[in-house]
Amino acid sequence: MNAPAAISTLPDLRGDFPGMITHDGTPWHYLDTAATAQKPRAVIEAMGRTLGENYATVHRGVYSRSAEMTQAYENARRTIANFLGGSENEIVFTRGATEAINLVANTWGRANLKPGDRILISQLEHHSNIVPWQMLAEATGARIDVCPLTDDHQIDLDVAEAKLTEGHKLVALCHVSNVLGSVLDAPRAAKLAHNVGAKLLLDGCQSAPHMSVDVAKLDCDFYVFSAHKLYGPTGIGALWARSDILDAMPPWEGGGAMIDRVTFEKTTYAPAPQRFEAGTPAIGEAVAFAAAADYISAVGLDRLHAHEAELVERLRRELGAMNDVTLFGPADSAGIVSFAIDDIHPHDLGTILDEANVAIRAGHHCAQPLMDYFKVPATARASFGLYSTHDDIDALLEGIARTRRIFGKA
Amino acid sequence: MNAPAAISTLPDLRGDFPGMITHDGTPWHYLDTAATAQKPRAVIEAMGRTLGENYATVHRGVYSRSAEMTQAYENARRTIANFLGGSENEIVFTRGATEAINLVANTWGRANLKPGDRILISQLEHHSNIVPWQMLAEATGARIDVCPLTDDHQIDLDVAEAKLTEGHKLVALCHVSNVLGSVLDAPRAAKLAHNVGAKLLLDGCQSAPHMSVDVAKLDCDFYVFSAHKLYGPTGIGALWARSDILDAMPPWEGGGAMIDRVTFEKTTYAPAPQRFEAGTPAIGEAVAFAAAADYISAVGLDRLHAHEAELVERLRRELGAMNDVTLFGPADSAGIVSFAIDDIHPHDLGTILDEANVAIRAGHHCAQPLMDYFKVPATARASFGLYSTHDDIDALLEGIARTRRIFGKA
Repeated sequence: MNAPAAISTLPDLRGDFPGMITHDGTPWHYLDTAATAQKPRAVIEAMGRTLGENYATVHRGVYSRSAEMTQAYENARRTIANFLGGSENEIVFTRGATEAINLVANTWGRANLKPGDRILISQLEHHSNIVPWQMLAEATGARIDVCPLTDDHQIDLDVAEAKLTEGHKLVALCHVSNVLGSVLDAPRAAKLAHNVGAKLLLDGCQSAPHMSVDVAKLDCDFYVFSAHKLYGPTGIGALWARSDILDAMPPWEGGGAMIDRVTFEKTTYAPAPQRFEAGTPAIGEAVAFAAAADYISAVGLDRLHAHEAELVERLRRELGAMNDVTLFGPADSAGIVSFAIDDIHPHDLGTILDEANVAIRAGHHCAQPLMDYFKVPATARASFGLYSTHDDIDALLEGIARTRRIFGKA
Repeated sequence: MNAPAAISTLPDLRGDFPGMITHDGTPWHYLDTAATAQKPRAVIEAMGRTLGENYATVHRGVYSRSAEMTQAYENARRTIANFLGGSENEIVFTRGATEAINLVANTWGRANLKPGDRILISQLEHHSNIVPWQMLAEATGARIDVCPLTDDHQIDLDVAEAKLTEGHKLVALCHVSNVLGSVLDAPRAAKLAHNVGAKLLLDGCQSAPHMSVDVAKLDCDFYVFSAHKLYGPTGIGALWARSDILDAMPPWEGGGAMIDRVTFEKTTYAPAPQRFEAGTPAIGEAVAFAAAADYISAVGLDRLHAHEAELVERLRRELGAMNDVTLFGPADSAGIVSFAIDDIHPHDLGTILDEANVAIRAGHHCAQPLMDYFKVPATARASFGLYSTHDDIDALLEGIARTRRIFGKA
């Protein structure tokens, strides 16, 4: 159970993350980055400065500090756009990825779907990429099709190709599974969707933090992700949508900042993206979100991806050598390893690991239909971030051995 | 133009607010608190700790730090509930007051309004309490009535009483006007609404920061407000709704955390308030929001109100003595003074004041119908907070005198 000789492609970055030590000063083996990432000091300090010495509202003040904050907020939009290879007029700040999907469903969806139209999702989607479409289907009379998985737990695009018809208006898929780490062949999914005239929405919550993303290369129409999973703050995420689509979308939430002119007789709306940002925006969060994107870009997404791939390879290899362990997901998972140990409930494993400062996720991971597919109530999931090290895997494997002993399986 | 002899009821609290000095270290005369309040160090530090050494997700982790964070998040909900005199199961965290109003419109509104039903709002509403109802009216076939103002710029409840019919399902009013500071007689508005079987929604954005609020005494059905106007962080606000109403409301945004059980055949939802909080919540923001409520409670809302009333009284008296100044709003305005100077555009005034580190708002204040009513394109607005002092008024009055000289009016 020794760490392999291979040297990680990243330096040890834990010192940048105040959350990576326990309260008594010992290291924390945080293996739940797919749920939410710890934040580097640069992000926390950007938030502090924005709410502190730089604080002012945006878009409306006639004084200089408000003008400076407006510039900082719009610079943040540009940073996030650049991070994705999009343009700044294609970025809408939302409360998170979930709200971004609901925004698409309630604006583009309600404007474009009619009874009998179809939406294709997959068996492995997160609830946030299922429930909004169920609500939209109920509101519009559209119907939902579910694409099954291949034997190695990827979305089966061959079946998708066979299922797709001219009636399909939307294909909404996870770019990287939050349970399995399986990576979608997004350009192929885009081609299949576009062949029948459908749009492709990618849930990028687990791809943006794990790999270099370029919406042009992915050829998607919508891309959503959350800041808090990308080493950024809570309370913010983003929707990227192709400008021609975004420009044509009706507004969703009404209020200040999203209007052109309000009268009791008739209200007209601002152009995109402002049209979709009603009310005072999440100013501190936007600036801190951009700080997170800058931090990751400085680390380098390719190096980050290689670093996590090395950790995944080792953990899958070590777990795969154990007779009582079931591994879920494909070998080339992006930073995520889901597994089960015979006769040990994932929650018990998680609780015992916690005693040794090892934090994993145990549960349905907001993907109950995938659990139903696997016929399990829950899995254990270890997920990596740019601060993860082989020490974390050592601690996890030791904790698994200890759990086995406690369960009399040693 | 000397400060009156009366001693303020509050100690000087500026030292708690890192935003209250300019970048060169000189005092900032921030008179735009009605747009957004500066944040005390306690709020910024609560955010920093929550995103830093305490950080973990909520509601799902099997490890202790996640359990601790869940407790902190739910404690924040309890703190906000206590701040309003409500109970914790009646508080939904939203992105802000605007989203809270949109939530009510899209859930309670769509479930309860039918063609021909009526909504009563007023002439002085903020766009966020107009546009969502216009959208709801368009979606449901309901109609909007507008209550005019009295001569001293209060919502005319006598006219409201005459206008209200059994067809009215909702009365949605500003508790305190963001332009005028006029305070609604909320218990009377509630009685009028309830007499015809309508619900009362109060936009509390400007009341929560300026006076003690008790939703039971106000007798309203919905109360919404934003954290950032209450000395709290950006990116969060709250909806309070009576538990019987909230419990019966259908969900709005779909996603993780708001579900009970998801299958492709049928999804069932969690009880309120979780049903309305899809996705990973704004964890850092909720904890910092509670820190803001604790800070204000420690200062004391009655003391704060008396402090601001003293400042309003003086500024209105001094401005009222100038022949070329028009004052808007009633004498007992809650912390807000809107005015115009003949032949000087509010934007010019704001720009010249900025040169002397005095920050006021000039514009339509997201209340274009009120500007139309006054037949002005904009007003100048000075608004106070608990850190405001007579020095700020001195600086404003000196800046007005300087502006007059620049415009050749001295």
